[in-house]
Amino acid sequence: MAKKPRKPTAVEKKLVGVADLVIAAAEKRKDPTIAIPVRSLSNVNFNERKGLIEMGKRKQARSFFNVAMAKKFMQTVLVADALSELQRANLTTSLREIYYRTKHTIKDSHENTLDTQDESDPLIEDLEVTLTALREELHVRAENAGSIVGPVVFVDDGDRVDCTRLGKGGYSVPSIVEPEYLQIARCTADFVLLVEKGTQWNRLSEDKFWRRYNCVLLTGNGQPPRGVRRLARRLHEEKQLPVYVLVDNDPWGYYIYSVIKQGSINLAFESQRMAIPKAKFMGLSSADPEAYGLPRNVGIKLNDKDVARARELLAYTWFQKKSWQEEIKRMLSSGLKYELDALANKDFQYLTKKYLPRKLKEKDWLD
Amino acid sequence: MAKKPRKPTAVEKKLVGVADLVIAAAEKRKDPTIAIPVRSLSNVNFNERKGLIEMGKRKQARSFFNVAMAKKFMQTVLVADALSELQRANLTTSLREIYYRTKHTIKDSHENTLDTQDESDPLIEDLEVTLTALREELHVRAENAGSIVGPVVFVDDGDRVDCTRLGKGGYSVPSIVEPEYLQIARCTADFVLLVEKGTQWNRLSEDKFWRRYNCVLLTGNGQPPRGVRRLARRLHEEKQLPVYVLVDNDPWGYYIYSVIKQGSINLAFESQRMAIPKAKFMGLSSADPEAYGLPRNVGIKLNDKDVARARELLAYTWFQKKSWQEEIKRMLSSGLKYELDALANKDFQYLTKKYLPRKLKEKDWLD
Repeated sequence: MAKKPRKPTAVEKKLVGVADLVIAAAEKRKDPTIAIPVRSLSNVNFNERKGLIEMGKRKQARSFFNVAMAKKFMQTVLVADALSELQRANLTTSLREIYYRTKHTIKDSHENTLDTQDESDPLIEDLEVTLTALREELHVRAENAGSIVGPVVFVDDGDRVDCTRLGKGGYSVPSIVEPEYLQIARCTADFVLLVEKGTQWNRLSEDKFWRRYNCVLLTGNGQPPRGVRRLARRLHEEKQLPVYVLVDNDPWGYYIYSVIKQGSINLAFESQRMAIPKAKFMGLSSADPEAYGLPRNVGIKLNDKDVARARELLAYTWFQKKSWQEEIKRMLSSGLKYELDALANKDFQYLTKKYLPRKLKEKDWLD
Repeated sequence: MAKKPRKPTAVEKKLVGVADLVIAAAEKRKDPTIAIPVRSLSNVNFNERKGLIEMGKRKQARSFFNVAMAKKFMQTVLVADALSELQRANLTTSLREIYYRTKHTIKDSHENTLDTQDESDPLIEDLEVTLTALREELHVRAENAGSIVGPVVFVDDGDRVDCTRLGKGGYSVPSIVEPEYLQIARCTADFVLLVEKGTQWNRLSEDKFWRRYNCVLLTGNGQPPRGVRRLARRLHEEKQLPVYVLVDNDPWGYYIYSVIKQGSINLAFESQRMAIPKAKFMGLSSADPEAYGLPRNVGIKLNDKDVARARELLAYTWFQKKSWQEEIKRMLSSGLKYELDALANKDFQYLTKKYLPRKLKEKDWLD
């Protein structure tokens, strides 16, 4: 388990900088202050040219000698210290473990440094934006809940992982897929198919769809976790692969696609490293039930929440294209949503043998 | 994508038998009837000798010419037919797709064969118990949400998957791990460590714990899905590996352990193929906070639900051993529960370097 000796990483230097700042201020008998970019809706905007949701430039000072801010300042430094420890030891961990690691009873008191994880999570996001380092670069993992199969070879911890030779199960996508941890050694695929649900991914993997259509099949088993999004982005960027997204035809599916494409409002900072502005929406489209002859009785009635959410989406800047307005309005006027699973009504292999081949042939997707 | 020609499987013959029964009865002008084992709590018991929760022998007849049963009878035959289709084509699918596949508008009516998935799911369970075939043998998948790493080699779809050579990410455990789909070609491990949460699995995988302690690391990223449980059982049975379970110290963790060990009440039928009566509870034990010096402030107060659930567990037949009564009562009297993540309070690698090595050395587990 011996770790190689290593030079401080760029991220480590930035983290140490937080402590240096406190020391420097103390030496000058000044109030230590950290300028932290504002992570609220008011400081987020959609960059039309780049096709990304981005953070603005507003910052807020967090200072030590301000009674309202002192505790938060101290917590920020503690969290930065725990994150430095991860860098020095070259370890990764979870948000929850960072919370536990930094929780202590303050000496000669009954007060805890932190009471709940709700206090440490935002501080990690503060440090992400302040130091312009992705959470993964800070060595903080999310869940690993994805699978990948197809003509791509990774190097993970020195092992060559050939995703054409892992049966139906495939490679379990790690939470952190930064180049430091995972290298794309080879990729001969023509495109990435990012499938929302595990069921359809299993269907396609079982049918070896990736072999016939020379693609990489990727899923996050639901809303794709960060590792899956980041991996799709890397395959897109480094290997110039188009990314097609396959989701249920409901407002939730549209939203998942939009997050993959231009990022999310909550994590606007990360769009520049995670979003794929050229991602295409392959389906399920509200035009598909008619085009592919799906009976109305496999549709599900839109409920009030669905309708409200669809109307919200209609108003988003990034859904203003005519094709998208039609797409969403068609769903609303039909009053129905459709799951990908409903394709099984025709045939268990309809997705593999009819639906996707025709979609690809007709280049029938939305941008 | 060509499938090999194949003989009808044993399961296929059983499924066809359901249709034959209807035809035979019709020819004899008798009422077609299926005898289905009763899947209610009243027909479930704990077999002390085997250490398993088992189904009793009570059955109920489902008949075609009974007005109250006719629709359900028809639905059962439809579902059996869809399942036969899966066998013939050698495909697997999900519960949800079975529902969609069997949903049709009945000819010359406005009535659907099924209205919701709530109608088809229990029928699949009925067929499982009637035909004594696991859901997986019927080719019906659950989610695939597990990862495995360590000295074991699988054969999946003809590919040799060596789990010592898949980096930190590991092999993505498929939902169906029956020998028909997944073969264990080689396993030189000394034991299986089944870890509840992905966080700790990631820690151990990153630290290559499996190499130093010659074990297989398995997780389901939460309550282990069927594929993960079944794979642990197969490693236990076919390779004689002891299985140690590592869960949070809360009533939910105890319950997860108990399901792995003796099965669940809801799916009593499956215990005989899924349960591992010799599985050991490695931790987190309510004795660990003291033994390993975890501060009280990383414990979480038991809420009313926790207390009620712990009291229920105390009453279960399979928690009557003295050691288990002490274990659960100790939690109740401390008023605290502890997550595995809390070990990070000591050190990010405390789990790998201190906690588990000492547990293994002291053979400190519950049976």
